[in-house]
Amino acid sequence: MTIYNFSAGPAVLPKPVLEKAQREFLDYQGSGMSVLEMSHRSSEFDAIIKDAESTLRELMAIPDNYKVIFLQGGASTQFSMIPLNFAKGGKAYYLVGGSWGKKAYTEAVKLSETIPFEPILLASSEKDNYNHIPTFDASAIDKEASYVHITTNNTIEGTAIYDLPDTNGVPIIADMSSNILAVRYNVEDFAMIYAGAQKNIGPAGVTVVIVREDFLNDTPALSSMLDYRIQADAGSLYNTPPAYSIYISKLVFDWVKEMGGVDKMEALNREKSQLLYDFIEQSDFYTSPVINKEERSVANIPFVTPSKDLDSKFVAEATPLGFKNIKGHRSVGGMRASLYNAFPRQGVVDLIAFMEKFEKENS
Amino acid sequence: MTIYNFSAGPAVLPKPVLEKAQREFLDYQGSGMSVLEMSHRSSEFDAIIKDAESTLRELMAIPDNYKVIFLQGGASTQFSMIPLNFAKGGKAYYLVGGSWGKKAYTEAVKLSETIPFEPILLASSEKDNYNHIPTFDASAIDKEASYVHITTNNTIEGTAIYDLPDTNGVPIIADMSSNILAVRYNVEDFAMIYAGAQKNIGPAGVTVVIVREDFLNDTPALSSMLDYRIQADAGSLYNTPPAYSIYISKLVFDWVKEMGGVDKMEALNREKSQLLYDFIEQSDFYTSPVINKEERSVANIPFVTPSKDLDSKFVAEATPLGFKNIKGHRSVGGMRASLYNAFPRQGVVDLIAFMEKFEKENS
Repeated sequence: MTIYNFSAGPAVLPKPVLEKAQREFLDYQGSGMSVLEMSHRSSEFDAIIKDAESTLRELMAIPDNYKVIFLQGGASTQFSMIPLNFAKGGKAYYLVGGSWGKKAYTEAVKLSETIPFEPILLASSEKDNYNHIPTFDASAIDKEASYVHITTNNTIEGTAIYDLPDTNGVPIIADMSSNILAVRYNVEDFAMIYAGAQKNIGPAGVTVVIVREDFLNDTPALSSMLDYRIQADAGSLYNTPPAYSIYISKLVFDWVKEMGGVDKMEALNREKSQLLYDFIEQSDFYTSPVINKEERSVANIPFVTPSKDLDSKFVAEATPLGFKNIKGHRSVGGMRASLYNAFPRQGVVDLIAFMEKFEKENS
Repeated sequence: MTIYNFSAGPAVLPKPVLEKAQREFLDYQGSGMSVLEMSHRSSEFDAIIKDAESTLRELMAIPDNYKVIFLQGGASTQFSMIPLNFAKGGKAYYLVGGSWGKKAYTEAVKLSETIPFEPILLASSEKDNYNHIPTFDASAIDKEASYVHITTNNTIEGTAIYDLPDTNGVPIIADMSSNILAVRYNVEDFAMIYAGAQKNIGPAGVTVVIVREDFLNDTPALSSMLDYRIQADAGSLYNTPPAYSIYISKLVFDWVKEMGGVDKMEALNREKSQLLYDFIEQSDFYTSPVINKEERSVANIPFVTPSKDLDSKFVAEATPLGFKNIKGHRSVGGMRASLYNAFPRQGVVDLIAFMEKFEKENS
């Protein structure tokens, strides 16, 4: 039985990457050591982390005046680090189009109880269960503000921002966890981009940060580990990095490059997700909670049947057939198909065939 | 050629663990998925993290009123989290017997510039290059203090604390990164124990925290990710955990158990390290910087030849023979043999044979 892993993260990794990692698992390039047991100060690991960075730079066309840092703690740690380093006592706006954006805002508010700055909710679609990206008037943004925080892809709700909003000249910081390398963005449009690896980059345990050098903090943060300047100056080696996660990320970057790069991945992702969106649209049985077509995520596609009971039945019947982790997030319900870069087109085709059959049997 | 990895961390892992991980790399227990791509909410991962915890509890005899948490960010993140959560505006003492203990103290001082509490240097052997564990008068400790921080094993300098000092009744927090599971400690003697995994537990990227429940913070920390109470209540799943590192740690815990447990590991480690200490002692060529025999680390053994030039020559000749990462830390110089649980006895025997030969040729 073929297994299709629809998990929203940690998520499916490219098979050739896993096969390569398995082959060199016990003895990395004749070193006699596994990457798992390799000193982060060794020449072998030095080459791995430098290759990872340079391939990522190439894939995303990251300009030289941006630093690339590999950190720990997931996007959730960034939610605190960002205001700690970049709010600088000023205004920090949050555009909240999904549950993770809300968490980013909530952590900023929590931090502001100790560290003085002003987190501001720019707009939120929470009252509509985040079924769209909220809009706002750019003139409402104070030009002197420190940053505007956005989430480019809402993993749970299945919406995305493809065209960046006008922020009245204020620098944009983006959580790109669930569509980095899946969709082309222009890095220069952002002061900072960050992404937990466990969707389109690699395994859980590493977080990629891309930050413009002149945006980096000059004032030390209250903890060296939470200080972007220190982490950037140390080349991600201020302390022991999550070496194996960085190694697998490097292999994934190599794979994306071999596949043709980000533009090619985006084309494949659009084609893959369109199959499912088209099927949902023509059906009277399945519906997508996302109300604006142009905001549809290519990465995460939630859908529901006419009832919660049928949703449960769908998951119960799909899972033993190899459609794993297809259950939707509890806040949205129903199902969710996460179609990241490594997810094969055939998995979408097979899912649609199952959906068709399930519809016939249950409508 | 046999490779012996003397790295201080990330460090050698047990061969049977690596072989098992390689076998199930592409398909974990028939799930059709690699652990690298497995949802942290899946039943498979739930079993992994629960097994990891229960085996660790058994190995270290962790009482039920202690929480076990798997975190990210290494021991270095703990240096900030500990005072943030546990200083509680009071006095926090630091016993500094090595470079890492100094870092813990320095981070506490940095934090105290923003969060009010009083970090106090209880004693330090820095002026003697940390060649011994500093002593202090317990009556100098304020009984109302929040905690006393110690480092049980000084990775860089090669000393260890085996008998805990009298802290006048104040709770002890210990960085046990480099000798956890290598030496038996009584968990109940500590309010909290923490350890970066990459020495005796597993790969880099996970940090184990063992904390007494009644010691946990009741006041929220300024960041959810840095809040022990939140992390403990979420069972290490507040956000996506470093799943693969936890999986390898579980395999290492299983291996330690199969090998006979911590007491057996300690006996093996004492025997292994004694071989090297005995050899150094009878030699007029090699010396150990550690001045008190009873403070010798079983895990990290620094030694020097009569000159810096000979030290360099030693490393240059040893490395191509398969004695990898034998170079000492720049702050101590010379060589360092890290003999963690997974380091084989034969590696020590072979190293001594090389040392004998090198001594003959160069004295």
